[in-house]
Amino acid sequence: MVRIKVMLDYSKILPWYKPAANESLKCVSKGQGLYQRAKELIPGATHLFGKRAELYAPDVWPCYYKRAKGCTIWDLDGNKYLDFTMVGIGACTLGYADRDITSAVHKELVSGNLCTLNSPLEVQLAEKLAELHPWSQMVRYARTGGEMASIAIRIARASTGKSKIIICGYHGWHDWYLSANLASQKCLDGHLLQGLQPNGVPRELQGLTIPVKYGDADSLKMLLRADHDIAAVVMEPSREQGYDKVFLSQVREECSRHSVVLIFDETTSGFREYCGGIHMLSGTAPDLCIFGKTISNGIPMAALIGTRSVMEAAQSTFISSTYWTESIGPAAALEFIKKHQRLNLGTVLEQVGERIRNNIQTACNSSGLEVTFNGTKALTSFSIVHHDWPKMLTLFTQMMMNQGVLASDRSYSNYSHTFSGALRKHRTAITDVLGRIALYASRDELDNVLRTRVKTSSFGRI
Amino acid sequence: MVRIKVMLDYSKILPWYKPAANESLKCVSKGQGLYQRAKELIPGATHLFGKRAELYAPDVWPCYYKRAKGCTIWDLDGNKYLDFTMVGIGACTLGYADRDITSAVHKELVSGNLCTLNSPLEVQLAEKLAELHPWSQMVRYARTGGEMASIAIRIARASTGKSKIIICGYHGWHDWYLSANLASQKCLDGHLLQGLQPNGVPRELQGLTIPVKYGDADSLKMLLRADHDIAAVVMEPSREQGYDKVFLSQVREECSRHSVVLIFDETTSGFREYCGGIHMLSGTAPDLCIFGKTISNGIPMAALIGTRSVMEAAQSTFISSTYWTESIGPAAALEFIKKHQRLNLGTVLEQVGERIRNNIQTACNSSGLEVTFNGTKALTSFSIVHHDWPKMLTLFTQMMMNQGVLASDRSYSNYSHTFSGALRKHRTAITDVLGRIALYASRDELDNVLRTRVKTSSFGRI
Repeated sequence: MVRIKVMLDYSKILPWYKPAANESLKCVSKGQGLYQRAKELIPGATHLFGKRAELYAPDVWPCYYKRAKGCTIWDLDGNKYLDFTMVGIGACTLGYADRDITSAVHKELVSGNLCTLNSPLEVQLAEKLAELHPWSQMVRYARTGGEMASIAIRIARASTGKSKIIICGYHGWHDWYLSANLASQKCLDGHLLQGLQPNGVPRELQGLTIPVKYGDADSLKMLLRADHDIAAVVMEPSREQGYDKVFLSQVREECSRHSVVLIFDETTSGFREYCGGIHMLSGTAPDLCIFGKTISNGIPMAALIGTRSVMEAAQSTFISSTYWTESIGPAAALEFIKKHQRLNLGTVLEQVGERIRNNIQTACNSSGLEVTFNGTKALTSFSIVHHDWPKMLTLFTQMMMNQGVLASDRSYSNYSHTFSGALRKHRTAITDVLGRIALYASRDELDNVLRTRVKTSSFGRI
Repeated sequence: MVRIKVMLDYSKILPWYKPAANESLKCVSKGQGLYQRAKELIPGATHLFGKRAELYAPDVWPCYYKRAKGCTIWDLDGNKYLDFTMVGIGACTLGYADRDITSAVHKELVSGNLCTLNSPLEVQLAEKLAELHPWSQMVRYARTGGEMASIAIRIARASTGKSKIIICGYHGWHDWYLSANLASQKCLDGHLLQGLQPNGVPRELQGLTIPVKYGDADSLKMLLRADHDIAAVVMEPSREQGYDKVFLSQVREECSRHSVVLIFDETTSGFREYCGGIHMLSGTAPDLCIFGKTISNGIPMAALIGTRSVMEAAQSTFISSTYWTESIGPAAALEFIKKHQRLNLGTVLEQVGERIRNNIQTACNSSGLEVTFNGTKALTSFSIVHHDWPKMLTLFTQMMMNQGVLASDRSYSNYSHTFSGALRKHRTAITDVLGRIALYASRDELDNVLRTRVKTSSFGRI
């Protein structure tokens, strides 16, 4: 496939554009130029760590988009890509600019999405969430998963009168979570992101948040038996390897024994393979469950569900924000849930995941590369055995871009991957690219073709 | 004006509706019925304290809306009201369902508002905010004012390596703020909301957040001189009485002297009388400034602006969330700022405020009632001299509703108040209502006409 670089009049598409001070670096694209300018205006350039160019192919990644529809993205230079990365960092499982979500949101906009009075959709969504999770009776909403987790922690602490939290997984940027790293900056390593610095988190919180490893029921038991100031265990019920039914039931038993609130964080796992929390398949019900970006296909929304006895503690403390009361969030969530059920989306995402893995596996087989997979089918990640996998992966991203596909080592399933031959195009591209990469690797020539610095995985200053 | 109660088929407008267990109370309206059900599903019934029926006229307030446009609201029972309260709790200064905001947001929805890549609108808005506030060079975004304030605190602490915060005003629900009440539950009294309970806030934070009174430069000086662990002073530069130029410059001087980060919280004051932070009129620049609900006319968005030297500290800590990167927030903010400038909205809101005050003053004069005003012109609040003002105010709200006007003791100016004789209708209604209330009060007959429990002002279990 030959890519033709379309020359655009940037003054028309970005009339407000000001070049960055170091644009004399001769950026390869308008997106790269804008990214340099963003670094001057936004500390860290983006508002989500996962959207940094440094995580993909630092010097050639398109960085910005002009339009996105289904799994197709148009960048600022007129290039068109199929998105086989995380598709909106895991948020847009129906694909970009879904017509039904857009229509439900537009209806709220023209009816007035924020008002002095309340939106009935808040109550309608609460009914729906309770119907999908019969163990829960009450809800609270927010607009981001991290904020929702902070509310869950506040309620758990208010409900128990205790302070400490045991964590297992990734739960956002807030003080209560990052404080786990006040003890040692390695505490949160293994919980998705490495090297998270707790600068700006008050030292006084040191010791309040304690990490445990997924599956380590013994450590959890010991902690809960030794320390009587533990308010909650908050965990992702399913992460890299799916859920562990036995471990979850052990955690449930220990939490109940010690009157500790069990919180499942389903910001990533919820409403993906299952229409509701994935915990519903495990047979273990928590006391509180957090939903975030997966509930509304790109429209800001988050929900916390829980038992009446724990949730009522929210009334004994102050948790309030104006923008939690606008109605496009609930409208998007209601429409998304309806569509998830109608499309049987969970099954579709698993099937897509199988085909993505098959594409990768087949390409590796025919190129003589050895690949290992991680994650659930709908949240596939992979790695190829090589002494410098980050470098090979960066080259993979660079070369897939040249084939019109955005790709990295994470490839989340998307409903729109079933449209117009996207999976077939992915297979063609990956077969060609991995074939050539295997050749370069065998000749030790990766550096010769790499046109960018190598990607990084950990958090740090850019 | 005669109100005709339209009988609606509720199964059509709320097909999912389930009656509350206590609906046998015979609620006066569908909104009241739904509010009872909401209390069973949502602790505290609403997600914003200011949207509780208990703050207005508990048993007759419409609670929910079906549609809102300009300053007109239609409730679930088909009643139509002009909104002369806070119009979206101060968020929607252009009026509900503004056509230009809707159109800008819709454009993003159909172009894909969330993507694996970043939206150029993030950078465009950053350029615009820096242009409006020449003292600032960098931005961060969030989706609620409270969350934005927490980010400002994190950055201030990371930048200084210190922990304590001096506060002056209302800054949301997060731990760092509510912890001021761990010392005594009255610490935050006088900071907008009384009796905020710090349940669920870790005791370990006690003493980290210290309130001072607006205008009390001496206390602030003493605190800053005695305690060298103060990271930041965060304050609303303007609240009930507008800004105090001298006080602000004193605060600035003391913060600079002690290397303390000065943060202005303009979640309420920003982009109202002035297109940008109201501090721009005062001649005092902070180090960081928070904008929230006033920046985007009802679409979830918040922004933090600041000097490069302080904002760069965000790179030394972890602050990241998926839904901060979607584009309808920045699109709404950009469109709002453009329209604020085009309409000269600040001046319009001040003029509307003058007319609202004039309507209230004239009605009081002709009824022999004594009134005092508070707040800036655009954020008018008033109180009438009476031994039971809460009871009189509740009756005022009840009777204004019967005239087709939603009203309380806060009446924020709105651009849409200039449409189709709204201010004239407000004058007619308030003149009639206050005339009759004065008569009832003189005969000590308020109780005879009151059809609801009396409103409350403070936070508590409902």
